[in-house]
Amino acid sequence: MSEKIVEALVELIRKDEHFIDFASYPLRGKNVSGEILLKEPSAVVSGVEIVQDVCKRFNLTIQFSCKDGDVVGKGSIAKISGDAYNLLICERTILNVLSFMSGVATKVRNIVEKTKGKVKIAATRKTIPFTGELQKLAVIHGGGDTHRLNLSDCAMIKDNHIKLYGSISEAVKQVKKILSFSKKIEVEAENEQMAFEACEAGADIVMLDNFAPQEACRVAKALKEKYPHVLIELSGGVNPDKIEEYLCEYIDVISIGRLTSEVKYIDFSLEIE
Amino acid sequence: MSEKIVEALVELIRKDEHFIDFASYPLRGKNVSGEILLKEPSAVVSGVEIVQDVCKRFNLTIQFSCKDGDVVGKGSIAKISGDAYNLLICERTILNVLSFMSGVATKVRNIVEKTKGKVKIAATRKTIPFTGELQKLAVIHGGGDTHRLNLSDCAMIKDNHIKLYGSISEAVKQVKKILSFSKKIEVEAENEQMAFEACEAGADIVMLDNFAPQEACRVAKALKEKYPHVLIELSGGVNPDKIEEYLCEYIDVISIGRLTSEVKYIDFSLEIE
Amino acid sequence: MSEKIVEALVELIRKDEHFIDFASYPLRGKNVSGEILLKEPSAVVSGVEIVQDVCKRFNLTIQFSCKDGDVVGKGSIAKISGDAYNLLICERTILNVLSFMSGVATKVRNIVEKTKGKVKIAATRKTIPFTGELQKLAVIHGGGDTHRLNLSDCAMIKDNHIKLYGSISEAVKQVKKILSFSKKIEVEAENEQMAFEACEAGADIVMLDNFAPQEACRVAKALKEKYPHVLIELSGGVNPDKIEEYLCEYIDVISIGRLTSEVKYIDFSLEIE
Amino acid sequence: MSEKIVEALVELIRKDEHFIDFASYPLRGKNVSGEILLKEPSAVVSGVEIVQDVCKRFNLTIQFSCKDGDVVGKGSIAKISGDAYNLLICERTILNVLSFMSGVATKVRNIVEKTKGKVKIAATRKTIPFTGELQKLAVIHGGGDTHRLNLSDCAMIKDNHIKLYGSISEAVKQVKKILSFSKKIEVEAENEQMAFEACEAGADIVMLDNFAPQEACRVAKALKEKYPHVLIELSGGVNPDKIEEYLCEYIDVISIGRLTSEVKYIDFSLEIE
Amino acid sequence: MSEKIVEALVELIRKDEHFIDFASYPLRGKNVSGEILLKEPSAVVSGVEIVQDVCKRFNLTIQFSCKDGDVVGKGSIAKISGDAYNLLICERTILNVLSFMSGVATKVRNIVEKTKGKVKIAATRKTIPFTGELQKLAVIHGGGDTHRLNLSDCAMIKDNHIKLYGSISEAVKQVKKILSFSKKIEVEAENEQMAFEACEAGADIVMLDNFAPQEACRVAKALKEKYPHVLIELSGGVNPDKIEEYLCEYIDVISIGRLTSEVKYIDFSLEIE
Amino acid sequence: MSEKIVEALVELIRKDEHFIDFASYPLRGKNVSGEILLKEPSAVVSGVEIVQDVCKRFNLTIQFSCKDGDVVGKGSIAKISGDAYNLLICERTILNVLSFMSGVATKVRNIVEKTKGKVKIAATRKTIPFTGELQKLAVIHGGGDTHRLNLSDCAMIKDNHIKLYGSISEAVKQVKKILSFSKKIEVEAENEQMAFEACEAGADIVMLDNFAPQEACRVAKALKEKYPHVLIELSGGVNPDKIEEYLCEYIDVISIGRLTSEVKYIDFSLEIE
Repeated sequence: MSEKIVEALVELIRKDEHFIDFASYPLRGKNVSGEILLKEPSAVVSGVEIVQDVCKRFNLTIQFSCKDGDVVGKGSIAKISGDAYNLLICERTILNVLSFMSGVATKVRNIVEKTKGKVKIAATRKTIPFTGELQKLAVIHGGGDTHRLNLSDCAMIKDNHIKLYGSISEAVKQVKKILSFSKKIEVEAENEQMAFEACEAGADIVMLDNFAPQEACRVAKALKEKYPHVLIELSGGVNPDKIEEYLCEYIDVISIGRLTSEVKYIDFSLEIE
Repeated sequence: MSEKIVEALVELIRKDEHFIDFASYPLRGKNVSGEILLKEPSAVVSGVEIVQDVCKRFNLTIQFSCKDGDVVGKGSIAKISGDAYNLLICERTILNVLSFMSGVATKVRNIVEKTKGKVKIAATRKTIPFTGELQKLAVIHGGGDTHRLNLSDCAMIKDNHIKLYGSISEAVKQVKKILSFSKKIEVEAENEQMAFEACEAGADIVMLDNFAPQEACRVAKALKEKYPHVLIELSGGVNPDKIEEYLCEYIDVISIGRLTSEVKYIDFSLEIE
Repeated sequence: MSEKIVEALVELIRKDEHFIDFASYPLRGKNVSGEILLKEPSAVVSGVEIVQDVCKRFNLTIQFSCKDGDVVGKGSIAKISGDAYNLLICERTILNVLSFMSGVATKVRNIVEKTKGKVKIAATRKTIPFTGELQKLAVIHGGGDTHRLNLSDCAMIKDNHIKLYGSISEAVKQVKKILSFSKKIEVEAENEQMAFEACEAGADIVMLDNFAPQEACRVAKALKEKYPHVLIELSGGVNPDKIEEYLCEYIDVISIGRLTSEVKYIDFSLEIE
Repeated sequence: MSEKIVEALVELIRKDEHFIDFASYPLRGKNVSGEILLKEPSAVVSGVEIVQDVCKRFNLTIQFSCKDGDVVGKGSIAKISGDAYNLLICERTILNVLSFMSGVATKVRNIVEKTKGKVKIAATRKTIPFTGELQKLAVIHGGGDTHRLNLSDCAMIKDNHIKLYGSISEAVKQVKKILSFSKKIEVEAENEQMAFEACEAGADIVMLDNFAPQEACRVAKALKEKYPHVLIELSGGVNPDKIEEYLCEYIDVISIGRLTSEVKYIDFSLEIE
Repeated sequence: MSEKIVEALVELIRKDEHFIDFASYPLRGKNVSGEILLKEPSAVVSGVEIVQDVCKRFNLTIQFSCKDGDVVGKGSIAKISGDAYNLLICERTILNVLSFMSGVATKVRNIVEKTKGKVKIAATRKTIPFTGELQKLAVIHGGGDTHRLNLSDCAMIKDNHIKLYGSISEAVKQVKKILSFSKKIEVEAENEQMAFEACEAGADIVMLDNFAPQEACRVAKALKEKYPHVLIELSGGVNPDKIEEYLCEYIDVISIGRLTSEVKYIDFSLEIE
Repeated sequence: MSEKIVEALVELIRKDEHFIDFASYPLRGKNVSGEILLKEPSAVVSGVEIVQDVCKRFNLTIQFSCKDGDVVGKGSIAKISGDAYNLLICERTILNVLSFMSGVATKVRNIVEKTKGKVKIAATRKTIPFTGELQKLAVIHGGGDTHRLNLSDCAMIKDNHIKLYGSISEAVKQVKKILSFSKKIEVEAENEQMAFEACEAGADIVMLDNFAPQEACRVAKALKEKYPHVLIELSGGVNPDKIEEYLCEYIDVISIGRLTSEVKYIDFSLEIE
């Protein structure tokens, strides 16, 4: 599962061990077991499958009592056992992964629940360097939408592109020449006119950038009337705490940079028995 | 400078480009220039040297008007130019690096200033996966202390180690057999007795874990009287907003997980002229 | 440009050199120049930008008189110069890249021209191991469509998926739960009924698998009438030599495995002056 | 077996999965089994050991009923089972490897059989980029000769070398100074005189480049009379369909670029039960 | 255990196999067993854990009758079995690792025993390129001190640094601004005055460089009287055969470049039954 | 030149820097120059080209006054300049490479000179782990023969192979089936009979293992009389100091494990002005 991420984490632990963990070296060969505990009242867990696969690579046995996306309460979420040295060199990284991913998943779930299914909540590319895939996986576990995964995904024409191509129409035209039919094209629009130009040019998705809630809804409605198959994404300056203000039946997606650019760890610990 | 980090970021951009950035591909060969702008009133900048070296690898010319650790105000902090395609595939990663590192540096600086030089403020190993080095570099730019960089650094005997070795004395004894004279040994102590046992065993650093401010100061004083060369670190449950409560002339270092486990981006943007 | 591919080719040459090229080692330090020649009457060139970037990494100066996608005739297409050793260790790989990519581009162009713009010609995932990106880039240079680039792209529900999910509807439903709005979903249909079920379930693309030409056109027409925004892809058993038989105004894309699973080198050579 | 190739294929699948295969993600945890089928009347199979080792790395159980180099008929050649997600992300790469390698092996076998053991049939360095090792292994399975594997192998003095050294004698002399006694030295000769100069200079192998069949045989005979231990290789413009014309008791090896520069997949499919 | 080293050795064997080991290829599938024998009267063994982990990765079963750091006599030290091909491709690398590491460990042990515990014997950074970690691990097995492991470890101010900073005091002052409290700072002193300046500036370790034995002891005594917590390291021109001359109760560590810059293999062989 | 080795050394320095070299970090931006000095009366220099290419990668300017293989006397051999930080992080690795390679080259040259051109002096596979290529390059610079470079080179049938195949004839027969005509086959013989069997079977090289000098010469003569084109290699227990005893007109090569399994650094230092 997510082989590249698992391999990257195995490599991370190898680099973190660096030479040998002197504090743990005399303990190798000793078999130990312990538990991973959530130290907060509640959280959406994320990282379970990833951590399982990483542990396997270090010959550690781990048994979670929950799965990715589950809401769990304070207390034990997994039993872990194996060679003391291996467990100790993996401990901090495992906990960091769970704390980090669960932090994202929990935040996403909180926002998603407020939307009552009326809109998709999506992440953006404002991810923490090197952790984009961990964060996007956590977004899925939280019930959100990953948005695109790399620059070869869904072609995105943003403000800087428009300046360089000269116009939205020209940009869309040139990009469509090389873009596969299997991919979508999205255009960032700063005002109503740009949004219509994007649709006219053949965009699959129009992103209304930095629109006030009511204005966004009005423009979205106008767009949908003329271009019912175009998806409308809202982005920029959306305060997750006031997500309700942005709900509108013509808006399909709200994307929020802070889902991934603001991080707060969920507190997990590993206690050896 | 920090060759491994620069190389990792170059690799990250290559992976992010994946195949080709379709939205930017028709623009290759076009020379462009732009500016990087701080969109907030003030921040401690971090990532300047790193970003300079990354840009060089993509044949982009970048000229910063500030250096790592500087406090800067709203507006332009750098001019950048080069091939449009290269600039566009680097844009998001460059901004994420600056936003991420400056976020850490700014937070650290705020806390450091409150301490008025009476204590060192250190990070911990509760770093975001894969970004430990970026975060620790930002901690330096913010005026903080990196603490150890990997598991082969300063040997750290924590609660789980003590359980497995049986006692602090036994742990220190066994670790000292293999630990180089060029490295320090630190012991985590949950109470006064453990702290004294650690000093007696030969620890270079004792970490008072989860002590209330006054109790910490009292124990630190008692330790310093008997073991003046031992460094005293305070950790666990320290609220950065109330850092003043923990200041005490016998405490050398306060380490705070949240320096790196809580992240808030500083808002930068890149505008093409 | 296509940084990952360039880096992979640099690495390939490093591995090919292995230790030292004994036949060329005594020639290092000697400056030489030469030409790359097309030995056939005509070809669509592909690999120009890639080869330029690879040469730069070995301090070779190369000047092409054509660009990717150009039709060129017999004779010189580039001048190259630099250290004799470096040129000789790069020679075979450079020629192989040009011969390989131009082979794909030329074949694609031939088919595309027969379609007179009535349909997109797309590659499939039947690529040569390790060369998928080279081949897909050559497909672009030939005027074709890359189709998806990896398994995280456009979700593709094929025969084996349908068996495992139980039905097309169930498959689409489950995949849509996690698939980003920025990605398309495609379903492979073996008959008309399956094609309609796919559209009903919400597929963005329906692939008619192994349909006879007239039957394909009839079904495509029926689908388009009810679901005008769904793209129709035809695949399986399409003979590139008889591509005209498959042209039909309701079919948007014809994908052909043999574009990439059958290879014939275009003959280039490098002659030192 | 061929550890580097297996590792490279594991890495290829990890990159192909990229993030997650959305179409297959909901199927993880489900155990499935299936068969790999040859869809053509007959083929020389190649890739069996490689695919076995790759499957093991993804916890897939695969049982082939044939081994590399076997001639097999239409129908099942292997049973495969394991986690549905893992099987689906490996499927296309496994099939591509088998189709690609078997294509080379089958072509080589066809030619080898025509030679009735009178000559070795060898590949050249005109391999598909990144797949040289897969192709050379397939050449072995087909009964052919790999020829050299990298630039540090058998020193090969070609036309461009001769130009740069000034003469064959000078080239051989200089290369012999550094070339290990454990390696052979081969010289490409465009005419009889060059061939004799090469032997005189101490070449272990002389390659007659672009000779007509009868002329090649005549020169080979003359060479063997004077230098019985020198191996004679024939190359350039050899049409595999007319290989019989080139058979001659004085020629040891015929090398053919098209063994590896022309590719045609053997058609295999994987059907889940 | 030492995951990075094990992984690097696995990679080394993969590269050494390169394509296939032709001499062993026909033997794959054949199960064999053998023994690893020490061919010398006595040695300190090093490499046992490393070799065990490497063997596991190639599905070889290996059972050592000794552990790292043990003194063993002539004859068998391990039984090994598995697939003939895998065993033969691993054989030379396994033996080289054991011979190399045991060579270092044996040399270190010989010197350590002469010191009768009065001083630590440390390695330096004069290691063989790419083998620093193998050598430092062997130093531990021999009873020596690794000294620092990389340039981010214990900050070391050497002659070139002092020239560039202008003075020892300035160097220490500037480095302390960024160096973590968890790391030590060491200064190389060429004479008594520099040694005192280093202590005054706050060095944790002073290295007396190229001092004659008696002079070293005199200066060390003077330093310890004033700065009892500073560690004194002696280095430069120390002849391991005359180590006794350097023993002095005020010197804590003697570091010797030749522990790692002079290598002599311990003779091991692998005999198949 | 030797791209893989250069890249590996660049990577080694990046890893050695690890995070930042705290002792040198405050010096970045300062331009410095210095000299590399030989501290011994005389040596054969090796590593010049490699070090030049490595320096270039760190933007250091280095100008050697000698080339690989030159005999140099005490004093300056190169001027080096660039950013102080970069120079300091590269210093130790550069010196280690020069000291290590020059140590091998000097030893080889000493032995080669004693042979007065009557025999080739070859290395074996008893190389230091991870440094095989550095050592073999140094062997060339010293005037020796690299012998084979990896397990896919010249097929070598050793004692363990003979046991497993059953006989020399069987071994050679089976290996020849898959070995390219472009590669040699060598057999290790423990006595005269085995040597003749090897020649009879078609070996290109026979290695006389552990023969006394006179016996070796007698057997070599007998072999050459019957098989004049077979190369005779002598190996095992050859004392480099008594190499003259082994000279014999029928022996082509003497291979000596200790060329690479015993290491002694040549003393170089880098002094900043």
